[in-house]
Amino acid sequence: MKAAIIGGTGYGAIELIRLIQNHPYLEVGTVVSNSQAGSDFSDSYPHLSNIVNLTLEKFNAEKISKENEIVFLATPSGVSSSLAPQLIDKGIKVIDLSGDFRLRSQTEYETWYKHSAPTEEYLSKAVYGLSEIYAEEIKGATLIANPGCYPTATSLGLLPILKANLADSKSIIIDAKSGVSGAGRGLSLTSHYAEINENLKAYKLGAHQHIPEIEQVLKDETGSLITVSFTTHLVPMNRGIMITAYVNLTGKISTSEVHDLYSEFYKDHPFVRIRPEGTYPATKEVQGSNYCDIGLHVDPRTNRLTIISVIDNLVKGAAGQAIQNANLMNNWDIRTGLDSIPMYP
Amino acid sequence: MKAAIIGGTGYGAIELIRLIQNHPYLEVGTVVSNSQAGSDFSDSYPHLSNIVNLTLEKFNAEKISKENEIVFLATPSGVSSSLAPQLIDKGIKVIDLSGDFRLRSQTEYETWYKHSAPTEEYLSKAVYGLSEIYAEEIKGATLIANPGCYPTATSLGLLPILKANLADSKSIIIDAKSGVSGAGRGLSLTSHYAEINENLKAYKLGAHQHIPEIEQVLKDETGSLITVSFTTHLVPMNRGIMITAYVNLTGKISTSEVHDLYSEFYKDHPFVRIRPEGTYPATKEVQGSNYCDIGLHVDPRTNRLTIISVIDNLVKGAAGQAIQNANLMNNWDIRTGLDSIPMYP
Amino acid sequence: MKAAIIGGTGYGAIELIRLIQNHPYLEVGTVVSNSQAGSDFSDSYPHLSNIVNLTLEKFNAEKISKENEIVFLATPSGVSSSLAPQLIDKGIKVIDLSGDFRLRSQTEYETWYKHSAPTEEYLSKAVYGLSEIYAEEIKGATLIANPGCYPTATSLGLLPILKANLADSKSIIIDAKSGVSGAGRGLSLTSHYAEINENLKAYKLGAHQHIPEIEQVLKDETGSLITVSFTTHLVPMNRGIMITAYVNLTGKISTSEVHDLYSEFYKDHPFVRIRPEGTYPATKEVQGSNYCDIGLHVDPRTNRLTIISVIDNLVKGAAGQAIQNANLMNNWDIRTGLDSIPMYP
Amino acid sequence: MKAAIIGGTGYGAIELIRLIQNHPYLEVGTVVSNSQAGSDFSDSYPHLSNIVNLTLEKFNAEKISKENEIVFLATPSGVSSSLAPQLIDKGIKVIDLSGDFRLRSQTEYETWYKHSAPTEEYLSKAVYGLSEIYAEEIKGATLIANPGCYPTATSLGLLPILKANLADSKSIIIDAKSGVSGAGRGLSLTSHYAEINENLKAYKLGAHQHIPEIEQVLKDETGSLITVSFTTHLVPMNRGIMITAYVNLTGKISTSEVHDLYSEFYKDHPFVRIRPEGTYPATKEVQGSNYCDIGLHVDPRTNRLTIISVIDNLVKGAAGQAIQNANLMNNWDIRTGLDSIPMYP
Repeated sequence: MKAAIIGGTGYGAIELIRLIQNHPYLEVGTVVSNSQAGSDFSDSYPHLSNIVNLTLEKFNAEKISKENEIVFLATPSGVSSSLAPQLIDKGIKVIDLSGDFRLRSQTEYETWYKHSAPTEEYLSKAVYGLSEIYAEEIKGATLIANPGCYPTATSLGLLPILKANLADSKSIIIDAKSGVSGAGRGLSLTSHYAEINENLKAYKLGAHQHIPEIEQVLKDETGSLITVSFTTHLVPMNRGIMITAYVNLTGKISTSEVHDLYSEFYKDHPFVRIRPEGTYPATKEVQGSNYCDIGLHVDPRTNRLTIISVIDNLVKGAAGQAIQNANLMNNWDIRTGLDSIPMYP
Repeated sequence: MKAAIIGGTGYGAIELIRLIQNHPYLEVGTVVSNSQAGSDFSDSYPHLSNIVNLTLEKFNAEKISKENEIVFLATPSGVSSSLAPQLIDKGIKVIDLSGDFRLRSQTEYETWYKHSAPTEEYLSKAVYGLSEIYAEEIKGATLIANPGCYPTATSLGLLPILKANLADSKSIIIDAKSGVSGAGRGLSLTSHYAEINENLKAYKLGAHQHIPEIEQVLKDETGSLITVSFTTHLVPMNRGIMITAYVNLTGKISTSEVHDLYSEFYKDHPFVRIRPEGTYPATKEVQGSNYCDIGLHVDPRTNRLTIISVIDNLVKGAAGQAIQNANLMNNWDIRTGLDSIPMYP
Repeated sequence: MKAAIIGGTGYGAIELIRLIQNHPYLEVGTVVSNSQAGSDFSDSYPHLSNIVNLTLEKFNAEKISKENEIVFLATPSGVSSSLAPQLIDKGIKVIDLSGDFRLRSQTEYETWYKHSAPTEEYLSKAVYGLSEIYAEEIKGATLIANPGCYPTATSLGLLPILKANLADSKSIIIDAKSGVSGAGRGLSLTSHYAEINENLKAYKLGAHQHIPEIEQVLKDETGSLITVSFTTHLVPMNRGIMITAYVNLTGKISTSEVHDLYSEFYKDHPFVRIRPEGTYPATKEVQGSNYCDIGLHVDPRTNRLTIISVIDNLVKGAAGQAIQNANLMNNWDIRTGLDSIPMYP
Repeated sequence: MKAAIIGGTGYGAIELIRLIQNHPYLEVGTVVSNSQAGSDFSDSYPHLSNIVNLTLEKFNAEKISKENEIVFLATPSGVSSSLAPQLIDKGIKVIDLSGDFRLRSQTEYETWYKHSAPTEEYLSKAVYGLSEIYAEEIKGATLIANPGCYPTATSLGLLPILKANLADSKSIIIDAKSGVSGAGRGLSLTSHYAEINENLKAYKLGAHQHIPEIEQVLKDETGSLITVSFTTHLVPMNRGIMITAYVNLTGKISTSEVHDLYSEFYKDHPFVRIRPEGTYPATKEVQGSNYCDIGLHVDPRTNRLTIISVIDNLVKGAAGQAIQNANLMNNWDIRTGLDSIPMYP
């Protein structure tokens, strides 16, 4: 099955191409980059030399839909909202990696993203692609809003305890840490090597656009309006997200019991690995892979649960989950093309 | 004034030497390293070649106290407790950078440190050297328990809001992140380059020996028993600690009001810098310096205060604060020898 | 086909396991680690949890040869020399990733490695596994001496110009740079994070054990005794080797002509990629992959050729080339299991 | 003495300010940044908060020369050439950190820098500020062309052996490696964190503008026209330059004899430290300091000398040497303000 990738010169697209290369049923058909159209893909990314021999193209919905059966939009927010409808109208399935179709409320979108939301017509077609939670809806979807990297690590980490009604939903604090690739290949002082290396900084306090996305999932799954504290930090590394979440427990429950609860919750989900008691995942342990690893600790002194959840932001937090959703949409085993071992060290 | 440094081949000692070199009234007299005694200091640390020409010596309380007026113990916990008394008995002032004399309760010490506590006799002599808070007590002390790196960043970050009685003391969560130098120059898999680089890991959940130290300060200063959640993370960088602390506010108060409260609290303390509203300190902005920089954000959605507090773990978190305490003990301006600009980038 | 891996807790073994997972015809049978025998593999390497469920075993030549058809020795030099004969005697094929069987001269081995060489009997069975150059010999071998990481990058970079008789063989200078994983997972101050990070150091000047290996290949292929200058540097990154080689040209020849010479030389070798004139490979462009990328520049001012050759030290410099050799030995396409795209960024 | 700094928002300016803060006789008078004029300096560099309280100004030669006695130009090449004359004409001394006044030949300048050279009038006033070599000329100068980072490390490393007439001047190869701060704070893909981190790349082969500068010094000091091979590499670290230079020796001479030659050459130069035989400097060992550390190795197999020379590119390679030159111009001890111990680790 041929897949088109739009936004071909960003890290999301590059990761899609790496994963599709390992996928037995998918093949890259078209790669679109309006800014670099006409040039060889390997001019922008020499690591693809002699492997991916494609010329970057301008966006053309007609041509794309004729030559491909599925489209991955790895475009920035604000761009996907105008491209996705053109493709859907041609009858082609779309997986959008941007934030454009994740929030159901146009008002919320415009408040947090500071530009216009997609129309209701297309918003209503979008299925939120958190694969472990919405597998059934994803199977029948024509437009997938692939989740953000932070919301993926956060939702997978929080849902088991929240759905078990064991947590005080007013107490949720998420301390999030990310590598730099999450900010993309664009140039800014916050991605300048000498500014980031040997440095740790907090950013966007109370203002990160992933906050409403997290709260929407938590409300959908628990039925309650949940307001979270969510603080993001930039860590001097390329890949990896860790969220450290803190929730007050509503009753006495041990680390061991929480461990069992999580293991049971994810027992049919091979990409979520619950670590044994007393051990906690590190981001490198999922590097380059689609795994979300979770460690758990109940502090009896405070009766508070600490959840450590890690993913590779470019894989489970972007391209990998997109492939996992493509697998679901095509009724392939969800592990198809995603069973590589994390690259260590 | 001549100063002896015990534990001369660790990073704490090296940083003391760097700072003493810039200090107009202090001079290195003796450097002790039992393991390397007899060798040139610059064999272990070539960056000192032609600058510090000293031979490492064995520990000898008699000789040290004759040739020096002050001693910095940069020895591991469990070692200081046996060396400090010998020196104090000779009438020499001691600043101990280890954890041995920080906890007043022997039971607490033995619970968290897993080895024997110092005797009551010497414990009772120790003054906790958090310079901004205990300046008066420090001035008259003969034994300083120099604070830990995490407790320094945490206490300076939390005390203004707690002492103003504006925080719910049950709600305190401290998410702490540190560079690798804090773990010292000893060898272990957790300081192996390939394991740490491109990695982020949480460690010692609920078990870090700095927890009781933090709780002791908070209790001393607020009068209340406070139990904190404290989670430590290892960040791939050499220097720097950031703590991100979360506290529920007991009333409505704006970021601006909190900012004024902190500014007022530290107005006579040049090493604590409160950042303007909407900006947050990064660890690199205090690199190599004795500053503790603090940023503040009240999230009106949750009525929770987020505090970002950063230090250089080897300076304000160890050697710098030790020098600041030496300044206090000698009635020198606290900035003496510590007024260098952070090294950036 | 089942493969045993000996030396299971080092980085070489881990990389073999990652690559074998992607290989359609190979499967891990046994993993041996004498030091960790009896424990789960994922205790040492949590990134393998739920993927590789194996118990580490003690070395037992009998059992290994019954349960596997091929053995990869990822053991240190000095260990392989005693294990390989036991396995070969049982009729099983062995690919040794250590230096033990690379040098044909026992004297040279003992001079550079400072311990006893293998016996002549087994040395004479060994085929040097530089896949692009010795494919025919490798196909029939029972014992492969898998090349060192530096010699692989160096030999592939130098051979085309030397074999074309266009270089002054007395002028060869190789300035080599490596990431830290090449030194393995063992503990030493030279792999301590705080010592390596933000640092660049030269090491083993004139004394690196890869020097005689490089000179042996160059002599075998050119017929001349060639003495090289070879200087190694440790770069603060996990993976990647770059060699920058300098050779005086014996006649006038342009960059473009050299480029054509190299392209022709490697035209049937998919893992060697010659970069277009004016561009040079970076180590990240081969990260996680079996490629060796080469850039070329003739400086008309000095009539000297500069060759930039990069590999991932753990893949083409170790485990990947071992798999490539296994492919050759089994008459599989050499790309089998090795066609992944480099991980970028 | 008041000093003005022009180009105030680059790393060179920031380092000047850090060093001037430690200097007993210098004080920052004016900081010019045309792009940020009118804003507080600490808006661009929060690490200066509460330490350096200055408003950035527009360039005004009249005002600068009234309020300051010396000017440091930390402006890009092509800008200094137009500013320096205006300042010199007002009778103020200028130390230019850019490349504009380093090459005496306008033709060479325009060939390598690709824009117009300064006029002969001002070029002829410029003294090349390699402090150890041209101290006498510097003392009387009104315009200093402060050397480039690579030429500083290279010249100090090569001159002793070349001036002793022991090297084949046709054989000189310089393999140079630099951290990222040398490229400044400007934005480009080659300073993007995710592109540089975990990567090593060669750049500007045969085209680096420091080549003619190196050759000019070597010619001035040896009387011979010397053409060098010079290859630059970008290393994933903030600070530090290492050059590994290779020269064929013209006679038999041991490492020990070369060591003595270098020690003698630099015996009155405290900032050049010759390492003991068998040890080599690492960049971290000069971090933040004005030292140039040199290690030496003669390989008897090739009769070639390998020279390892390291500096901090922002200190001895830029701001530190500028201060050293200011010390010379004012007849202060050259160590004034520069005697800090390198920051380690």
